[in-house]
Amino acid sequence: MAQTVNKSFIPDLPKGGPLAEYRKRANFDWKDLKLIFEEEQTLKTKYRVWKLLEEDPLFTRSNTNLPTNESKRIAAMQMNHMANLNIVPDEVYNESITQRHKYLCAVNEALHAYSPSLSVKIALGVGLFNNALIAMGTERHQKYYKAAWNREIVTCLAITEVSHGSNTKRIRTTANYDPKTKEYIIHTPDFEAAKAWVGNLGKTATIALTFANLYTPDGESHGLHGFIVPIRDPKTLIAYPGVLVGDIGEKIGLNGIDNGFVMFNNYRIPHENLLNRTGDINEEGVYESVFSEPGKVLGAALESFSAGRIGIMQESVNTLAKAAVIAVRYSAVRKQFGPERDGEDIPIIEYQLHQWRIFPYLAAACVLRVSTFSLFESYMSAIERSQKDSNGFELLTQLVSELHALISSSKPHITWTARDAIQEAREACGGHGYLKASRLGDLRNDHDPSCTYEGDNNVLGQQASNWLVRQWENVESPVGTVDFLNRKDQMMKRTFNCVSKRWSFDHFEFALECYEWLLCHLIQKTTKLIGEEKSRGRNTFEARNNAQVYAARDLIRAYPEYYALRTFKERCSKPDVSKEIGVTLHTTYLIYAYWSLEKHMTSFYQGGFATGSAFADGVRKSLLEYCSQFKNVSVTVADALAPPDFALDSVIGKADGLLYENLQNEFMTNEGALERPRWWKDAVVKQQIKSKL
Amino acid sequence: MAQTVNKSFIPDLPKGGPLAEYRKRANFDWKDLKLIFEEEQTLKTKYRVWKLLEEDPLFTRSNTNLPTNESKRIAAMQMNHMANLNIVPDEVYNESITQRHKYLCAVNEALHAYSPSLSVKIALGVGLFNNALIAMGTERHQKYYKAAWNREIVTCLAITEVSHGSNTKRIRTTANYDPKTKEYIIHTPDFEAAKAWVGNLGKTATIALTFANLYTPDGESHGLHGFIVPIRDPKTLIAYPGVLVGDIGEKIGLNGIDNGFVMFNNYRIPHENLLNRTGDINEEGVYESVFSEPGKVLGAALESFSAGRIGIMQESVNTLAKAAVIAVRYSAVRKQFGPERDGEDIPIIEYQLHQWRIFPYLAAACVLRVSTFSLFESYMSAIERSQKDSNGFELLTQLVSELHALISSSKPHITWTARDAIQEAREACGGHGYLKASRLGDLRNDHDPSCTYEGDNNVLGQQASNWLVRQWENVESPVGTVDFLNRKDQMMKRTFNCVSKRWSFDHFEFALECYEWLLCHLIQKTTKLIGEEKSRGRNTFEARNNAQVYAARDLIRAYPEYYALRTFKERCSKPDVSKEIGVTLHTTYLIYAYWSLEKHMTSFYQGGFATGSAFADGVRKSLLEYCSQFKNVSVTVADALAPPDFALDSVIGKADGLLYENLQNEFMTNEGALERPRWWKDAVVKQQIKSKL
Repeated sequence: MAQTVNKSFIPDLPKGGPLAEYRKRANFDWKDLKLIFEEEQTLKTKYRVWKLLEEDPLFTRSNTNLPTNESKRIAAMQMNHMANLNIVPDEVYNESITQRHKYLCAVNEALHAYSPSLSVKIALGVGLFNNALIAMGTERHQKYYKAAWNREIVTCLAITEVSHGSNTKRIRTTANYDPKTKEYIIHTPDFEAAKAWVGNLGKTATIALTFANLYTPDGESHGLHGFIVPIRDPKTLIAYPGVLVGDIGEKIGLNGIDNGFVMFNNYRIPHENLLNRTGDINEEGVYESVFSEPGKVLGAALESFSAGRIGIMQESVNTLAKAAVIAVRYSAVRKQFGPERDGEDIPIIEYQLHQWRIFPYLAAACVLRVSTFSLFESYMSAIERSQKDSNGFELLTQLVSELHALISSSKPHITWTARDAIQEAREACGGHGYLKASRLGDLRNDHDPSCTYEGDNNVLGQQASNWLVRQWENVESPVGTVDFLNRKDQMMKRTFNCVSKRWSFDHFEFALECYEWLLCHLIQKTTKLIGEEKSRGRNTFEARNNAQVYAARDLIRAYPEYYALRTFKERCSKPDVSKEIGVTLHTTYLIYAYWSLEKHMTSFYQGGFATGSAFADGVRKSLLEYCSQFKNVSVTVADALAPPDFALDSVIGKADGLLYENLQNEFMTNEGALERPRWWKDAVVKQQIKSKL
Repeated sequence: MAQTVNKSFIPDLPKGGPLAEYRKRANFDWKDLKLIFEEEQTLKTKYRVWKLLEEDPLFTRSNTNLPTNESKRIAAMQMNHMANLNIVPDEVYNESITQRHKYLCAVNEALHAYSPSLSVKIALGVGLFNNALIAMGTERHQKYYKAAWNREIVTCLAITEVSHGSNTKRIRTTANYDPKTKEYIIHTPDFEAAKAWVGNLGKTATIALTFANLYTPDGESHGLHGFIVPIRDPKTLIAYPGVLVGDIGEKIGLNGIDNGFVMFNNYRIPHENLLNRTGDINEEGVYESVFSEPGKVLGAALESFSAGRIGIMQESVNTLAKAAVIAVRYSAVRKQFGPERDGEDIPIIEYQLHQWRIFPYLAAACVLRVSTFSLFESYMSAIERSQKDSNGFELLTQLVSELHALISSSKPHITWTARDAIQEAREACGGHGYLKASRLGDLRNDHDPSCTYEGDNNVLGQQASNWLVRQWENVESPVGTVDFLNRKDQMMKRTFNCVSKRWSFDHFEFALECYEWLLCHLIQKTTKLIGEEKSRGRNTFEARNNAQVYAARDLIRAYPEYYALRTFKERCSKPDVSKEIGVTLHTTYLIYAYWSLEKHMTSFYQGGFATGSAFADGVRKSLLEYCSQFKNVSVTVADALAPPDFALDSVIGKADGLLYENLQNEFMTNEGALERPRWWKDAVVKQQIKSKL
């Protein structure tokens, strides 16, 4: 069934040019494919944001690497200016929560594709701050929510301390309640307990949502709580007395964000600044827990902890797509060597090795975009469910646990895939890929922290493996991601031989059945390892630590891969997919499937699923074969994934394919390109034998 | 046998501090291990260079990211200033060629560890230029050699063109001989043929050794030749008429180097500027080939093409070591989580997963340092051999071919290993690893082009696999790297079962025997694939292209790994290795061996070497076991590999281990850290509801 949408809101690509040769080989319209990958409304929002930015001089890109201080100034100004652009119109607030989130995510993605510093700065200062406020605050904190939303205050979220990041239980900042003045005394015992790496705190934030251990006057600790802590006078940006706040200095990337640290010196804040949704100090100065609406608390917690990670996944899919698009377009234009010594060069996209290096990332960008959207929908339906009064709390708990496992493994998986894609693209574009204007270096440096923040990939992933291990004995999978575990005995008997009797390599089911065996195998292996460690007298902590390598760690990679394949397969079978696009999506699926499976090959042999060479031969040959088939549609698939040139901003990956013409402009017009440098006298060699030369 | 060298020239490490706990667990002196990894003279040279730089204000590091233009100015000044430092004393020229090269390599390594931009700038302008001059020039070009050596001229090597890098046969710059004026007319037909990416050319070079196709007046092409082409007036740095030269702009890293492009507009240079070692235009204007001393020509070619690659290998081993050192020191100090919920945190080095992530890179730095030195010695002995009059030309040819194969596969292998080490270290150091002052970002950005320049890793490696495939039928291995191929039938019959009957996993031979099978298998597989492709009518070019993935490409990874293991094993058995150090080197070997073998696991199963789980189980368990053993010596091994703090320059990897104290200084003292920014008015939010907050 063909698309019926009016596609004209998607700007056309340049006609002709060196990419036309490959573009014409696809038998479908790239815009139709784009509308499979993203919803019409999402795309419209994105193009609208890009247009607004492109037309506003404040968002003109600099051609040179700005000093860090200047990057911060510009990002701060851009953030403030956002409110004037009316990027989020009022009617968005009247839509359903899901529609609202979709809209905001689309805006975030569009901003991130333009400037990660800007989008992360806004996400930290508005999104994450407000989510935390919803999860932890009450009516009396509404004013902060609104002010942050309208960008009337610059905020930040101060959790991490210098010596503790992932392990939030070890946070040492204290908040002692003083019943006399009804104030909390916030204190940082030493530098190691200073709040650190807090985005927006370095130069600009006036309010920090700060996590500290609440103590009552009897000396009892009531655990971590959130506090609204004023940092700077908003009129002057001068820090309040008792607050030693500063900027941690340059980072590898994201230098538009002012990451800061703060040490509190017995700094007093009023009683109402405690975020008191789950507990508060009453009139008598006694701590009281509040238990109400557990479903809503759970939903808010899910929203609070997961929104950032889902945002990172969406951003990383875009980053992955950008890297793949640049590499594919470059390789379709760049020619080198050829079969005849004196004959024509051929485009490097024709090389099998080159196809194998970059097409899997292009396929991954397609598959992971679709699966991330699917995960987002499940997440939103859980949040909607949590808002209903009559929800079954037990089912909701299971739902939240499963989504948390899915997100905790997908975030590492997608961020790592994007990381690898950028590096492979850089190398695949050779020297020209090393030009700053190729944008691959900025992509890498800005993407890098995604592997660490909002849960270090290696640590976060363990939350997924712990959940998966629990499913081994008792399946509680309302989302259905591991429903096959209900038939685990049957699954474990699977071998390559029996799977290959049922399905050939070109069938969707083949890889899925392999993955089901693999997941069972890895869960069982992890469970067994933990059991063995415990039987040697180790406690749960140590036992789990010793079951990571080649077990839990492989498991949390396989799980999101399987989820991605399943959801992508579902997408392929929807009625809006035309026959032509269906063929390409099928190839895309197979490339991603066998590329991913191949990395688990040792487990398949070690666990007895495969013997002899047939399985490895089949997977590898299939991958190469599907890559070869993909060549003719790869440029069109890249077009369907690509943001406009304004957002892609790569001199070697432009949609016009005019690689050398664009490089010529870059070479000739970069700042001072053709000038003798002002410092030429410093470079002249003093004791020369010039006369002789 | 204990060391007898006076080790006092190696500066001591700080006493005490948080690293002392792990340091005291080693039962040997880190300085003794350092003297196993590097020769005394080499170390003395390096420490001398580092001391000279540290004491000279011109080499003081900037605390902030400098504008590109300023980085270039400083690098140019530092390069000019080199001559004043007397870093290469005159007596070095009187030493043997091998000693001289060792000295110069040590200087290069020390400079590179301080600033890759500076060392690459010198290497391009002096080393590579002069090597090319030796290989291609004659007596009449001596003056350039001396002037470059004494840093009286700034030079560069112009080979790559905008549209052709690896494929030098496609170079399109022309040099037409004009017999009337006895001049060559250098011409660039269009922008795609502009020389590009030429280091030092952008702003400073006055001379470019330029590759162009020589044409005689009869219109005949005589192929690529080198020409000495004046670019700028050395007194003013203004380009000569007919030379359009400029800077290509910012790069991802190495921004101290002014990479440039140049287009020649029928630009005339004198007859004697042709580098005429292999051919020249005679008095009658006719081209004449010169064939003399083929051994020396071959030796010069080896020196010319390989020096840069060996230099990159040495630099990359240092980069790899730096990344591993930072990660190991950080992980020995950084604590997080612990077995008891309310108990102590433990250093993250105690985690099995963390050990497995970083120790293999520390081991790789040890093994690859030793194997690179071994390769360097074989290379120097070939060059020495080529200088003797009575050399056997055929043997020399074989020697040069084998060394070329070894270098062509080792350069990719080492640069990729360093690339991965940096990324893993960055992630292993978490957020703090993302601080610019951790230096991991600079390491990554400066190291990145090593995977591309002096032969793109993927393209260069194919020269090694082509040589290896040739050895399958006819072994010509004077260096002995593939002498086992003489027993290939026997090798191919090997299986895990028979190897494991002879050796246990803790024996040196186990991995070597596995590798010999693997190499035979992969050569045979590649050969077979090429044969199959040809039998389908494909020519050699296409057949080879289709034998890369899972065949030739795996082969050229396995070959340098095997070479590294063999040479490291030899080093372990030398008499200067004490018993205690021997134990640690043995563990180091085993970690590198099983970590590397593990990556080839699919081939071992696919090729029938292993069936069932025993092989994979054994390799993986051994790796984890040896990593666990390595923990107690890892900090000491890191000390033995580490350059002094001045060169390492990482706030999180300092030798004193005072992680948080050093971070405190960094946070508090970075430029403007505690100040309100000058642009604060731009950041203040205009329409505030301040009064309410």
